[in-house]
Amino acid sequence: MEIIEPTLLLDKEKCRYNIRTMVRKAEDLGVILRPHFKTHQSLEIGGWFRQAGVDRITVSSLRMAKYFADDGWDDISVAIPVNLREMDRINLLAADVKLNLLVESADVVTRLSEELKNRVGLFIKIDTGYGRTGISAGDTDGIENVLQAIASSDRLAFAGFLTHTGHTYHAKNATEVKKITTAALHELSSLKSVYRKRFPEMVISMGDTPGCSLATTFDPADEIRPGNFVFYDLMQASIGACTADQIAVAMACPVIARHDQRSEVVIYGGAVHFSKEYLLSRENEKVFGHPVIMRKNGWSQPHYCCYLKSVSQEHGILKMCPEHYQESRPGDLVYILPVHSCLTANLMHYYYTLDGRVIPHL
Amino acid sequence: MEIIEPTLLLDKEKCRYNIRTMVRKAEDLGVILRPHFKTHQSLEIGGWFRQAGVDRITVSSLRMAKYFADDGWDDISVAIPVNLREMDRINLLAADVKLNLLVESADVVTRLSEELKNRVGLFIKIDTGYGRTGISAGDTDGIENVLQAIASSDRLAFAGFLTHTGHTYHAKNATEVKKITTAALHELSSLKSVYRKRFPEMVISMGDTPGCSLATTFDPADEIRPGNFVFYDLMQASIGACTADQIAVAMACPVIARHDQRSEVVIYGGAVHFSKEYLLSRENEKVFGHPVIMRKNGWSQPHYCCYLKSVSQEHGILKMCPEHYQESRPGDLVYILPVHSCLTANLMHYYYTLDGRVIPHL
Repeated sequence: MEIIEPTLLLDKEKCRYNIRTMVRKAEDLGVILRPHFKTHQSLEIGGWFRQAGVDRITVSSLRMAKYFADDGWDDISVAIPVNLREMDRINLLAADVKLNLLVESADVVTRLSEELKNRVGLFIKIDTGYGRTGISAGDTDGIENVLQAIASSDRLAFAGFLTHTGHTYHAKNATEVKKITTAALHELSSLKSVYRKRFPEMVISMGDTPGCSLATTFDPADEIRPGNFVFYDLMQASIGACTADQIAVAMACPVIARHDQRSEVVIYGGAVHFSKEYLLSRENEKVFGHPVIMRKNGWSQPHYCCYLKSVSQEHGILKMCPEHYQESRPGDLVYILPVHSCLTANLMHYYYTLDGRVIPHL
Repeated sequence: MEIIEPTLLLDKEKCRYNIRTMVRKAEDLGVILRPHFKTHQSLEIGGWFRQAGVDRITVSSLRMAKYFADDGWDDISVAIPVNLREMDRINLLAADVKLNLLVESADVVTRLSEELKNRVGLFIKIDTGYGRTGISAGDTDGIENVLQAIASSDRLAFAGFLTHTGHTYHAKNATEVKKITTAALHELSSLKSVYRKRFPEMVISMGDTPGCSLATTFDPADEIRPGNFVFYDLMQASIGACTADQIAVAMACPVIARHDQRSEVVIYGGAVHFSKEYLLSRENEKVFGHPVIMRKNGWSQPHYCCYLKSVSQEHGILKMCPEHYQESRPGDLVYILPVHSCLTANLMHYYYTLDGRVIPHL
């Protein structure tokens, strides 16, 4: 395939290395890896996980759950509070696979149980400081209410407690990430000590790529659910969760204009390809990506001296340092590492591997 | 259709009103309306423009051009500097329709002419202050180089000068927008006076929804290319380019959790639905949308007291004022006006009209 428009390149070796590394880490630290598939949303990449020994997954929508269930995945957690409007999808899926849903209120549990036709597992969402959603670990009354609602239906099974320490994404460095993870694990530890006798089978599940990449222990968690690590991206590298070498996707974009006086290259590649996720530079400028140079065996380290400084719907402006500016002229391709690979992959619909294959995205 | 997941609602009456209003304005002010179809990317909505008398359009990719050409549109401008890697698509399209492309360098014109099989019109991109791309209106040498390159091929026809005053999007109010538009028109006026004798048929084309919505004259422009006005959005309302009443799309999102202590509602609806485009509130907080109340005949004015304060991949957090908080519980739908309708529509793939019809998006 000739690349004629913005195309998301996938370095399969880096991707499989990232998968193997996380699989091995989970084994070493004695936790189950239930990777979040919302990042790649690809059956083929799912297959690479399967080959690495993974047999249970996390997704963020029932549509995604169905996509992977149809490919033979039969143990799926949907890690977003249950949407009561999707009961038909839940009932269809729960007939076929071991389905875990996420809840945080007795009211929702009760209404869910009234319409459920098949057995599902329920994780209770615990907020360990991210502040998005979930019950505080210390709110034993709130937790007890949900537990009792679960116990009152024979179609519901309490699966355990689940947390997403997403505030690691706002951390400035690895030390801050580790601090957040340690605090979350501490809260989960108290929770486990309260409930483990009553629910010896329950699973303590935690997830977020920065935390899972940097932690050296997951105790007392039984399961981790990182997702982004399959590709990583500039945000993860800036947090310190990966090296730039581990970033497994890069966008190939045609150059469509150049502006010598400003050392800027205009690319075909904008917000509908990259998303509008950005990092802030030291000078407080928005950065939507950094370019790499394509070589025979893959791409170079990012050129931090150059950056994608703005994206409109289809255009991007790449600010180049004088050294790299001369290399690009209209019709050439430039290669740019994305800030947030999940959102970029979601927009791009397919991957193009360095060995020339198209891999579909949901 | 029952709404079970994030769904982009379209108020057809508002949309057709916006179309009619812009068509009438163009007629009144004596300019051609060549609307930008990148906002809606819909054949059916394109049909509403056709019914209103529009017979030429603007798009931002060749893929989009093909989509509309297949539906009978035969006079299409692609308003992004030409991508030399898409010569096959250009040649196929130019065989079927009157195709205008955008250029800003003699080098690109020459290379384009070498591979062109059919005649195309070329607009020269003029930068009237946005700073994204184009030749400065005062750079007569630069313009002359491009004109000579165009003249040297009988497959190329000089169509005119085209500018996009996209810096109106950063304006704080209508006065600032008008100032930008006036300055751009002034530059175009000088340009027209230089070239009109030599190219009596040339078209001066300008576009951007804020400018086109607020201008009371387009002199010396011959053509306008606004796009966003078909739906408008919160960004346009905040600039003063439309009233909140004119916003023709709203996202319906299921409520999945609530947090009484924080007066927050968690919705199924995140960055993969809304995009990460935001406005800043007076308190410098990011705002990803404002909710409306759905009534029999359409939705209410936005509740500016409530706002979508964050979006992760699939979740959003809606901060509610005490008055509106009690209304929402899990399983209910909330309705949220988007900040940037172009990016939201691009993510959502279809529209659902208030009278219950699904309208596909490219």
